[in-house]
Amino acid sequence: MKIALLGLGSVGRGVAEMVDKKDLGITITAVADSKSGYMDPAGVDIPSLLARKKKTGHCGDTGITVADIIKKATYDALVEVSPTNALTGEPSTEYIRAALGRKKHVVTSNKGPVSLAGKDLRALARKKGVAFRYEATVAGAIPVMHLLEHGLSGNEILSISGVLNGTCNYILTRMADEGLTYDQALLEAREMGYAEADPTYDVQGIDAAIKLVILTNAIWDTGKKLADVERTGIDLLTADALRLAEEDGCTIRLIAESCPKTHVLRVSPRILSKNHPLVVEGTLNALTLTTDMAKEITLIGRGAGSVETASAIIGDLLYIRDQYARRA
Amino acid sequence: MKIALLGLGSVGRGVAEMVDKKDLGITITAVADSKSGYMDPAGVDIPSLLARKKKTGHCGDTGITVADIIKKATYDALVEVSPTNALTGEPSTEYIRAALGRKKHVVTSNKGPVSLAGKDLRALARKKGVAFRYEATVAGAIPVMHLLEHGLSGNEILSISGVLNGTCNYILTRMADEGLTYDQALLEAREMGYAEADPTYDVQGIDAAIKLVILTNAIWDTGKKLADVERTGIDLLTADALRLAEEDGCTIRLIAESCPKTHVLRVSPRILSKNHPLVVEGTLNALTLTTDMAKEITLIGRGAGSVETASAIIGDLLYIRDQYARRA
Repeated sequence: MKIALLGLGSVGRGVAEMVDKKDLGITITAVADSKSGYMDPAGVDIPSLLARKKKTGHCGDTGITVADIIKKATYDALVEVSPTNALTGEPSTEYIRAALGRKKHVVTSNKGPVSLAGKDLRALARKKGVAFRYEATVAGAIPVMHLLEHGLSGNEILSISGVLNGTCNYILTRMADEGLTYDQALLEAREMGYAEADPTYDVQGIDAAIKLVILTNAIWDTGKKLADVERTGIDLLTADALRLAEEDGCTIRLIAESCPKTHVLRVSPRILSKNHPLVVEGTLNALTLTTDMAKEITLIGRGAGSVETASAIIGDLLYIRDQYARRA
Repeated sequence: MKIALLGLGSVGRGVAEMVDKKDLGITITAVADSKSGYMDPAGVDIPSLLARKKKTGHCGDTGITVADIIKKATYDALVEVSPTNALTGEPSTEYIRAALGRKKHVVTSNKGPVSLAGKDLRALARKKGVAFRYEATVAGAIPVMHLLEHGLSGNEILSISGVLNGTCNYILTRMADEGLTYDQALLEAREMGYAEADPTYDVQGIDAAIKLVILTNAIWDTGKKLADVERTGIDLLTADALRLAEEDGCTIRLIAESCPKTHVLRVSPRILSKNHPLVVEGTLNALTLTTDMAKEITLIGRGAGSVETASAIIGDLLYIRDQYARRA
């Protein structure tokens, strides 16, 4: 299977490293970062590529653009992990549309295109007879999309609820365990590399809400948007609130919930008993699917990380190869 | 998709009820209990079938045997959920072999055939070009087999550990929460219908060990047997041991573990921190897969129940339909 890789940040590097290290039957035939591109239909030499990128900041030739790669490279699937604004979805949405238009499968870790244009992109993929997959956009390494498609396929999904933002979960864990204030825990999260300089996107629940929109639309084939999510962040939580919860054997977590039947689409801090399955520690993610037959299924795993996210992308790629080989 | 259903106990009834209630595109064309059989190539009327079974104790004609159904009925997949001895695997293994021999897909919830003859049966299925699936044998409604095949497909599985027996977990939960002795908690588990009159199979870790063997052989393609599992039950645990663990913020759970690299294949009571992901309450099951890319993925869900087990069987059936329709 030949892939074109757009983006050589943390996720792109993780994908390249795993493709190089493991015998997956995947070949990278083209790669682009924001400044340059490189194509080799026989397969890019990955160690040289990563060394070149590290040394020069470029992965290839500044004369080769992303558009060139999408149009001209030889590949079966586009792996779209380029730096993208999650609130506008660009430039990723444009890249994905172009590749699907060329009847190429697309796998992405970018939340913007899926939350904003997921329905359109799924329809375009169907029309072109190719796959559009985005396991990596929600809950990192946890293969929730695969589970919904297969293991639980006969089930009606009644509702979902989960911890979808590792930064908030880290802050809340530290506030509870060490009695830190929100500001102290945020500072620590920054020092650990878990929080951005501007933490708004995480701590106000925007990231969790975007992931909730992606899951909701994928499960119930709706067209929900970020603005439809009732959203409360963790930035106004006091150490006292957490202490009071702890005194009752409880704690506080930022929970994303969706239940179409009761019209709930919400991200908010919730008081949960400490033995509740969604009370996970540190930067972990967790997700409970409530279904008619299997009842509650909870998944816990890493929500971020270079190799962890690569796991989700590679799972999508191998799935596409398997499915379309059978069809062909 | 046409199925022949062998067994109308709790699981068989669950499958029949769900097939009747939900629009799954599945038709039951034959059914057998231990005393009788019934065939209708156009589709058995499920409400009449279940009413007849309830009233007479027979699902059909005492002149029709299981062997007749396997040989003569019109079906794509055999759903083998007949009462079977988990330690001998019979008569289930014989039924499965006969159906695979007829080039019929087989889905089972019976642990015996898979733990004792899984490798042979998988090979026979491959030779005949059909599927042999057994998601329901391990951890009930949790679709762990699907996850291993797809979502985590690029990953190397390094080890597994889990709570695979709901009866033991219920007893341990009650001992910890209420300070009950083992005997008191066992009595309660019996009254709740969670423990058999002879609890040996559960409390000595045999059930968990058989499930561990199934998972181990499925993941690493080995030929491990029940006798290869180092096994300690919960029947000698004292209320004091649990109290001491609780004083340290810990508790005790019966953990099944497999790690080929360190030659661990073990079921034993383990002291775990209360916020460990495998510390689940009551009759729940939980399973952690440790992998090279996704790292730890934990799954929590119901380990038993009529409809919950039907969920796993139906997931297997729909998967087979999907896969083989593509191939056909």
